[in-house]
Amino acid sequence: MSKKGSKAREAKKGAQGGDGLALRELLRVPGGKPVDLAAHDARETPAGPREKRAGRAAMTELSDPLADLQERLWAASSAGDRRRVLLVLQGMDTSGKGGTVKHVIGLFNPSGCRVHAFKAPTPKELTHPFLWRIKKALPQAGELGIFDRSHYEDVLIARVRSLAAPAEIERRYDEINRFEKALTDDGVTVVKCFLHISYGEQRDRLLKRLDRPDKHWKFNVADIDERALWPAYQQAYELALERCSTPYAPWYLVPADRKWYRNWAVSRLLLEHLSELDPRYPEADFDVEEARRRLLEQ
Amino acid sequence: MSKKGSKAREAKKGAQGGDGLALRELLRVPGGKPVDLAAHDARETPAGPREKRAGRAAMTELSDPLADLQERLWAASSAGDRRRVLLVLQGMDTSGKGGTVKHVIGLFNPSGCRVHAFKAPTPKELTHPFLWRIKKALPQAGELGIFDRSHYEDVLIARVRSLAAPAEIERRYDEINRFEKALTDDGVTVVKCFLHISYGEQRDRLLKRLDRPDKHWKFNVADIDERALWPAYQQAYELALERCSTPYAPWYLVPADRKWYRNWAVSRLLLEHLSELDPRYPEADFDVEEARRRLLEQ
Repeated sequence: MSKKGSKAREAKKGAQGGDGLALRELLRVPGGKPVDLAAHDARETPAGPREKRAGRAAMTELSDPLADLQERLWAASSAGDRRRVLLVLQGMDTSGKGGTVKHVIGLFNPSGCRVHAFKAPTPKELTHPFLWRIKKALPQAGELGIFDRSHYEDVLIARVRSLAAPAEIERRYDEINRFEKALTDDGVTVVKCFLHISYGEQRDRLLKRLDRPDKHWKFNVADIDERALWPAYQQAYELALERCSTPYAPWYLVPADRKWYRNWAVSRLLLEHLSELDPRYPEADFDVEEARRRLLEQ
Repeated sequence: MSKKGSKAREAKKGAQGGDGLALRELLRVPGGKPVDLAAHDARETPAGPREKRAGRAAMTELSDPLADLQERLWAASSAGDRRRVLLVLQGMDTSGKGGTVKHVIGLFNPSGCRVHAFKAPTPKELTHPFLWRIKKALPQAGELGIFDRSHYEDVLIARVRSLAAPAEIERRYDEINRFEKALTDDGVTVVKCFLHISYGEQRDRLLKRLDRPDKHWKFNVADIDERALWPAYQQAYELALERCSTPYAPWYLVPADRKWYRNWAVSRLLLEHLSELDPRYPEADFDVEEARRRLLEQ
């Protein structure tokens, strides 16, 4: 076993009890019960590092184990292991979906990552069922897929902005659950993170974008109109979390007012799930000695 | 202007003469002339760092300027700038295409990268012209696309293994040139890197894969058969470099026996091209003061 192998085992130990922490148990949204987002402090640090400096150090520590587990997942796929991971990122504007991709997914080998940012559906996409474009962007065996927004928009903005008939939107929750059940049955580990920010933090982040000319491109005047609908969006999120946090594909409520905590928490959730998958390097399916002999003869 | 802005300017200065170096002039293959790969030492370090430690330090220095330029390219696309970059990686087995993606593309924001590894064409792909699958994988505006293998396989393995009629393969060089001309006319900066390794280095790398059980999955017995065709592959590469190193999409011959040099050189080539593009953050297309006022009222 390589040095990397023992690193992965240590990471696993850490994730599964070595330090007594299973972040996914702490952040998991219990499905089927009403969710009150206002009762969750977006600045809290429920486990792990308590301040920025420690948070960044903890991120650095996760870097090698995550890269190692990703390589194992990828390697295993070369021998027919169909397992893959899908990270779903949702949250209000400025909640840090893009920042999470940059800082968390930046720790992984780009070869094995498939990032997809979902925008407003195109006219062509609108002619199809809402899951059509989602299914086309799924990760393949061995990959880590990342959705920056997702099929949940179809019960979020679609609900708040009445983009579909109410009965149609009601049907979608079950359809999403059936879809995610089929994914998990097919070997997809679905990690859904709701990046929870406060109303005040969103204002501060939007104002900062206005203060910096090199951030103006990120600002959209329509964001102000969306912000005016904050309570309706929070309700739509509460409903989505309540109805779609399932045993096979739970939602994680990630406190996201502190960027360093958000980054650490999402990384840690990925580590816990990847450690549980425990992907293995495949055994050689050829005669190693024979291959060596042939190479040395060339 | 932000702090990041001045960083980018420094990088530009460095790339365009500040340190007297334009790597792309040194590594560029002069098109239309016979290429003799055997005359190029795969261990040489024609410019920049001369040893591993300095090479890694130089890579670290490139990291911020590259990320900054990428963000500008991405930001510019939000205002209609259609420019994008396509990095094409080719080279013999073990030449480090995958390692380059890991270490060089790992410096960028994953959101703006579109990595595609081309394998042997599927039956469906074979029913289409050879460029069909290539066109589907191109980067979009603001993106950095990365091809791990590419349309060049259709004049490389296709030639060596006679996968198409000789006359068809002959036609492909011109077709590739026309295709790349159309891409560059449409705003794509095409950066083609041939990762040049020596016959001995390939043997050492293959043997190392055999020595490490956690590398066995990367080993394919068929690689030994391919290696037996080394001279034919070198000739096919020489022909591709001669015929398809054009003024609009030149080939760069990257010495790749030293991994740290290969990583630095590809990073540097990307920096030089991105610096020349000089993408700019778009100006605000809205009233900043009005937006601030509305936000503060909410």
